[in-house]
Amino acid sequence: MITEQFISTSVTPLESLDILSPHEVAKLQDKSNSGLYRLFRQCSLAVLNTGSEMDSASQVLDRFKDFDIHIKHKHKGVQLELINAPATAFVEGELIQGIREHLFTVLRDLLYVGDELDLCCDTDDISERTTNTVFHILRHADAMKPHVKPNMVVCWGGHSIKRPEYQYTKKVGYELGLRRLNICTGCGPGAMKGPMKGATIAHSKQRVLNPRYVGLTEPGIIAAESPNPIVNELITLPDIEKRLEAFVRLGHGIIVFPGGAGTAEEILYMLGILLHPRNKDIPFPLIFTGPEGSEAYFETVDKFIRETIGENATKRYEIIVDDPHQVAVRMREGLDLVLAHRKETDESFHYNWQLFIPPEFQLPFEPTHEAMATLNLKRGQEDYILAAQLRRALSGIVAGNVKEPGVEAIRKHGPFELTGDKDIMASLDHLLESFVDQHRMKINHEEYVPCYKVVR
Amino acid sequence: MITEQFISTSVTPLESLDILSPHEVAKLQDKSNSGLYRLFRQCSLAVLNTGSEMDSASQVLDRFKDFDIHIKHKHKGVQLELINAPATAFVEGELIQGIREHLFTVLRDLLYVGDELDLCCDTDDISERTTNTVFHILRHADAMKPHVKPNMVVCWGGHSIKRPEYQYTKKVGYELGLRRLNICTGCGPGAMKGPMKGATIAHSKQRVLNPRYVGLTEPGIIAAESPNPIVNELITLPDIEKRLEAFVRLGHGIIVFPGGAGTAEEILYMLGILLHPRNKDIPFPLIFTGPEGSEAYFETVDKFIRETIGENATKRYEIIVDDPHQVAVRMREGLDLVLAHRKETDESFHYNWQLFIPPEFQLPFEPTHEAMATLNLKRGQEDYILAAQLRRALSGIVAGNVKEPGVEAIRKHGPFELTGDKDIMASLDHLLESFVDQHRMKINHEEYVPCYKVVR
Amino acid sequence: MITEQFISTSVTPLESLDILSPHEVAKLQDKSNSGLYRLFRQCSLAVLNTGSEMDSASQVLDRFKDFDIHIKHKHKGVQLELINAPATAFVEGELIQGIREHLFTVLRDLLYVGDELDLCCDTDDISERTTNTVFHILRHADAMKPHVKPNMVVCWGGHSIKRPEYQYTKKVGYELGLRRLNICTGCGPGAMKGPMKGATIAHSKQRVLNPRYVGLTEPGIIAAESPNPIVNELITLPDIEKRLEAFVRLGHGIIVFPGGAGTAEEILYMLGILLHPRNKDIPFPLIFTGPEGSEAYFETVDKFIRETIGENATKRYEIIVDDPHQVAVRMREGLDLVLAHRKETDESFHYNWQLFIPPEFQLPFEPTHEAMATLNLKRGQEDYILAAQLRRALSGIVAGNVKEPGVEAIRKHGPFELTGDKDIMASLDHLLESFVDQHRMKINHEEYVPCYKVVR
Amino acid sequence: MITEQFISTSVTPLESLDILSPHEVAKLQDKSNSGLYRLFRQCSLAVLNTGSEMDSASQVLDRFKDFDIHIKHKHKGVQLELINAPATAFVEGELIQGIREHLFTVLRDLLYVGDELDLCCDTDDISERTTNTVFHILRHADAMKPHVKPNMVVCWGGHSIKRPEYQYTKKVGYELGLRRLNICTGCGPGAMKGPMKGATIAHSKQRVLNPRYVGLTEPGIIAAESPNPIVNELITLPDIEKRLEAFVRLGHGIIVFPGGAGTAEEILYMLGILLHPRNKDIPFPLIFTGPEGSEAYFETVDKFIRETIGENATKRYEIIVDDPHQVAVRMREGLDLVLAHRKETDESFHYNWQLFIPPEFQLPFEPTHEAMATLNLKRGQEDYILAAQLRRALSGIVAGNVKEPGVEAIRKHGPFELTGDKDIMASLDHLLESFVDQHRMKINHEEYVPCYKVVR
Repeated sequence: MITEQFISTSVTPLESLDILSPHEVAKLQDKSNSGLYRLFRQCSLAVLNTGSEMDSASQVLDRFKDFDIHIKHKHKGVQLELINAPATAFVEGELIQGIREHLFTVLRDLLYVGDELDLCCDTDDISERTTNTVFHILRHADAMKPHVKPNMVVCWGGHSIKRPEYQYTKKVGYELGLRRLNICTGCGPGAMKGPMKGATIAHSKQRVLNPRYVGLTEPGIIAAESPNPIVNELITLPDIEKRLEAFVRLGHGIIVFPGGAGTAEEILYMLGILLHPRNKDIPFPLIFTGPEGSEAYFETVDKFIRETIGENATKRYEIIVDDPHQVAVRMREGLDLVLAHRKETDESFHYNWQLFIPPEFQLPFEPTHEAMATLNLKRGQEDYILAAQLRRALSGIVAGNVKEPGVEAIRKHGPFELTGDKDIMASLDHLLESFVDQHRMKINHEEYVPCYKVVR
Repeated sequence: MITEQFISTSVTPLESLDILSPHEVAKLQDKSNSGLYRLFRQCSLAVLNTGSEMDSASQVLDRFKDFDIHIKHKHKGVQLELINAPATAFVEGELIQGIREHLFTVLRDLLYVGDELDLCCDTDDISERTTNTVFHILRHADAMKPHVKPNMVVCWGGHSIKRPEYQYTKKVGYELGLRRLNICTGCGPGAMKGPMKGATIAHSKQRVLNPRYVGLTEPGIIAAESPNPIVNELITLPDIEKRLEAFVRLGHGIIVFPGGAGTAEEILYMLGILLHPRNKDIPFPLIFTGPEGSEAYFETVDKFIRETIGENATKRYEIIVDDPHQVAVRMREGLDLVLAHRKETDESFHYNWQLFIPPEFQLPFEPTHEAMATLNLKRGQEDYILAAQLRRALSGIVAGNVKEPGVEAIRKHGPFELTGDKDIMASLDHLLESFVDQHRMKINHEEYVPCYKVVR
Repeated sequence: MITEQFISTSVTPLESLDILSPHEVAKLQDKSNSGLYRLFRQCSLAVLNTGSEMDSASQVLDRFKDFDIHIKHKHKGVQLELINAPATAFVEGELIQGIREHLFTVLRDLLYVGDELDLCCDTDDISERTTNTVFHILRHADAMKPHVKPNMVVCWGGHSIKRPEYQYTKKVGYELGLRRLNICTGCGPGAMKGPMKGATIAHSKQRVLNPRYVGLTEPGIIAAESPNPIVNELITLPDIEKRLEAFVRLGHGIIVFPGGAGTAEEILYMLGILLHPRNKDIPFPLIFTGPEGSEAYFETVDKFIRETIGENATKRYEIIVDDPHQVAVRMREGLDLVLAHRKETDESFHYNWQLFIPPEFQLPFEPTHEAMATLNLKRGQEDYILAAQLRRALSGIVAGNVKEPGVEAIRKHGPFELTGDKDIMASLDHLLESFVDQHRMKINHEEYVPCYKVVR
Repeated sequence: MITEQFISTSVTPLESLDILSPHEVAKLQDKSNSGLYRLFRQCSLAVLNTGSEMDSASQVLDRFKDFDIHIKHKHKGVQLELINAPATAFVEGELIQGIREHLFTVLRDLLYVGDELDLCCDTDDISERTTNTVFHILRHADAMKPHVKPNMVVCWGGHSIKRPEYQYTKKVGYELGLRRLNICTGCGPGAMKGPMKGATIAHSKQRVLNPRYVGLTEPGIIAAESPNPIVNELITLPDIEKRLEAFVRLGHGIIVFPGGAGTAEEILYMLGILLHPRNKDIPFPLIFTGPEGSEAYFETVDKFIRETIGENATKRYEIIVDDPHQVAVRMREGLDLVLAHRKETDESFHYNWQLFIPPEFQLPFEPTHEAMATLNLKRGQEDYILAAQLRRALSGIVAGNVKEPGVEAIRKHGPFELTGDKDIMASLDHLLESFVDQHRMKINHEEYVPCYKVVR
């Protein structure tokens, strides 16, 4: 297997992405700050580096520091010149077709977001603008199919899960595929790849002509989580919040596989939205599942939710252990409810306009000491608000424990000061400890020290 | 034949145009000045009124004053409610499919131009902006096919031509179709419909799978020149100048059939562009043709060009009388040169970026007394400038003779005062007299009085 | 226009017809009596000679006596070498695609009939065998579309009709096409071409993706009635009876335009079948129509039917004068009845198994003196039998009056002796006189002498 | 997982297989010996029983003794009624689409072979007839794609191989799929399924639009080796010899994975053909491969070939151990030679007419005592003849050791008497012993007793 080689070549685009103006070409070549060159080079490299096992974006960028990409306008259309590209993206000198497609969809999304999007909606309401922006990006990417019954299943979960967990995601994907359901994940390996592989085999048996394997990514994570070439609709959202919104507006149901603290955050995101009073009648199947031997993960999460947000929250999800067939049956049933509800309420099948995303979930959160100090982790507020607060706290604590800038901040300024009920804090503490025990965070049991203290 | 009836019904869109945001729906429903309702209603009515023989937009709008159109967002997608629509658009209660498509392409273009277009190019150069705007509209309408060799033949000519002339346009269309060439016209009847009909039969014999019958229109003329349902790509440009630019950048060659003064203006437009020094090496087949009995039209025009702009101009066009086969053969040869040139210069096949359109042709002209007085109709200037000046003079004189506001202005302020060489003015005079004699203008020989005088 | 030239070239087939065995290639090259060469050459020439105005097969064969066709097996597939082929089949040296298709469908049918067909049905019943043979040929030609509602309209009528009649057939075709109906004719010019041309324009407006223009021919007539390249399904049946059967089993309704004695024979064929008691509940729309000025043809035929077979027969057809819209409306209504009946009786949509064709219509008739003498043209027998007898008598009398071998036989052996009721014979006589008067037979009024006498 | 249940339902066909005549329906329903009912029921059951682990046909037939299948002709087309079908073929009550296709392709092939085939070639040469019959069956099944470059890779090997061997076949399939190669196997599990699964994932990454997974089966083995639903072209040849011939004429190269004695027989079949002097210049890539740990199988076979047929034979194959990438690279290179040779010799890409199959390989062999006694296992004859003799001897010895009728015959009549060179017999003996040692035959080491003796 070729591992350390580079290939330089030129690539022609998909037909539909083959028409650029000289202005657009110039923008992609523009190395200044207002230009798109840096972003385009970085995303292209990520796309080409598929299948690599390197974890960090910086590692990738370092190894392929000589990689470059030029764009040319030839009489027949656009052409990309790749210089020192990862050889793993090629088969006998020819770029794998799926990767070739990814290259040009990245180009499509970067240009569209940079160029045409600003006026998509003449409102000052930032929430409405965000929702509309996501809509326009998805429409431009042709990701919405108006006459198709709800069938898009989002799969979330860890990217570095254990072998039996990975095999399990394949089996679940296979059962979903047998029911002609499509898969949407965040790109990358592990729980984001397994369901697509399983579904591919099942779709082949069912002769599904246009199976959809949607990958939603954003420039900040694409380098670390290269899209798998099975993904046949790669969409690059401009930031992490729009990516999360795209998942819940495009997807019709969600399956969560085991993961780490990041997966727990995604669970709190989804759960918080579903708990908002305006969403209480909107069906949205949400299933947590893993193989035998991985029960602990969801037991931990479930316990945490019960202890903090309350029993009521557990009505919005279901836990299924080691039964891919049942997961698919329950998802299918859930999607039938989604269909019925959309018909009843005249909601489109292709974009979930109805779902209300409270600003607490739509706006980004930067876990500084100050931001952490203003969190309110007490009972006596709406459950969806508490979910949002907990999600942020979790995010900050993870940063304080394992992410470099967070650890540094703690070292400098001491532990975060949190305001919250004692038992809620205890639950949070327990949740993190369990993740450490289950080897789901890069930290040893002995080293684990809470990076916060509770104040009154 | 049903003639005076109205039908109310609802229509679902083409799949690809079926995804609107609530904002867009609101904009189409918005009856205020900033809204699109009025424009959308007017264009929709025009599209539905196909095949009608009414000449004037106001007549159309008057007869169908009770026509209305609503847009609805249903769970499956968008739906249009038509109220009191012209029954001629329907076959046994069902809207003709081609017209259904036109309705939704109008909607597509109005929304795109209104909404997304403003930032398509961050330059202040108005010419560059215009060229880019046309490009973006055409790309959004999927009108550019990057890997296809030049094959788009623009057909210009009158909309109310005589029977033998109409039959002749069909025969030319048939010969073009046999050579697998596509047709682009300005929509409407006469010379804009005949070539498409002829080509349809030939494309059927040649089993051309995706024949293109492109209609370029704009809101100001669509009401009077309803697109024929054979048109399978209807594109509504925002104004007359962008429409003209779309013809010459999208088309690879032009055939001009007999027409009236409007057709003569189009000839001067094209010829002026081709005479610009920057365009002198760009091949662009331009053929004037008509059946036996219609020679006079092009003899007149040719004589006028020779006498004013000069012999040199005649190198850019060819006149062929009563020989559809030869017209197609010459066009085919011309397109081969276009292909060779585009390859040589790395120009795209799908949009003629190279062609320079001087601002004299790109900017609109309003024929007031003042504007007419500033025209310079003398020799001693670049031939392309003279062509532009003559085109404007012609435009003004036609207005002064037959268009209501023009006639009124002459009555009030006296004849236009023109500055020009005597013989040039005489040629212009002769050109118009000939059109009158040939019944190509709505004016009798006796009534024709020049509406201008030459000053020094 | 090139008229008297020849082209030699090689042609590659449609993909689906591109796989022949060496045995099949040998058979097509075999010039012996058991080989297919002669038949293949003759049919190919006919196909290539489309659009020619020559009436007789022998004329065609004579002009193109140097025409030859070879078949080659190349690594990529089959290739045909054409030597001295009619230049009219080509556009700038390239064979018109529709004609290229026809060449290979002829090859397909000749091989299939010659080779694979014999065992298609292990019954000794000759009628059943014939019906099955027609079924197998149509299936092999992919002419049956199982899930499609009845929409195949057969158009019969003369091939050398007057201009207004030809224009009228186009208008009827246009109205049928607007209703998404398909057209099936016997190939050739006149009433067999006009409806297809009209339908092509309408199908284009309705965006019908796979319009069907079915041409049913047989080796004996193809040379004189070359298929029009609009025909996109050419099927060569082995003989005239199977061709007639294909019309009534594949078609869902029939429109008859004016023609000559041949058209009258076809009317008697269809009417006789519909009058059989086993067919009395089977709906089958049958419309006779022509423009203003052509009423006489159907008046004559209608009168003849009433006077001979009786009023009852007139219930199975409808005459519509000069109203293409009404023809299409009535056909559409008739097809709705066909659909309802097929559903009710579990009959397939694609082949009319139910319709019983009495042997009197299925077996060929050779009009010798002896055969004519045994006809029974009297009342007192089943009306469908009388229709069959009259059809044969008509066939014989036409032969005796205008066809060379018939005229010769009469000259030699005297007039045919017919046994029949006097008034029936008088009606027959009147029918033929009227055709002569209407210039629908190649004979002058003065020359017309009945070639038969009635005996007791 | 549902395992022991039955489902009764009705199934509609693929469009293209939806047109049957009443005669054909009757033949499929005919339970007499001349009818097709029994064969159709048995093959249908096999197709529906996919994924089952039952080894023997009789076991399958026994468990589903209540299974029945009826065929109906409804107005829209054909319909199959399934009674007590295996539930594993269904997903939530709906038949898996791939299996639905298989049902109707079985029907297609049974009818075609029974009905239309007899006259496909008017020669008495039985070899030519066989080759033509195979050609006609494949053409009728639309299995030949004339303009496609050689890309069909046949994979042979055992159906009950070990896990690492199965995983290895998937990896090889994946590498073949990355190179856009298609897969053809004998249906069933193990080495016949793995390559298709691997190729499916790779074809998805390469966006291969119409990947081909061809399964060649015959009524005698289909029950025991149910086709995997990934197979998207199932073709049922009438007998084992035609199936083998189909492999070598349709396939462009062969990969052999480890298997048992059956696989060794297939190797001798292919090798014998390639050793024939008439085939010596025909390139035909033949690769034996397996994972680390399975080297023994091919070492054994290779040694046997060298010792018996001779070193020369080894030039026609290549052994690659544990290197899927290299297998694919070598196959790709081999196919390039095939392409070059076919172009050079004007051989079609879709059917290997050139390859001569000696009658020794084309005619069936029944291993009776008498037939075994007439084998000539000595040197001094053409190597391809010796290969054919050895293949037969091997076949007989396997039967004598493990197949019920063979074991019984040996018990009754004593060991087979073989005429051969001593060392050749020793090699054969060693080959079989090795298979026993490697657990590739259902027999223990201790039990293995040669069932033959050598005579002079």
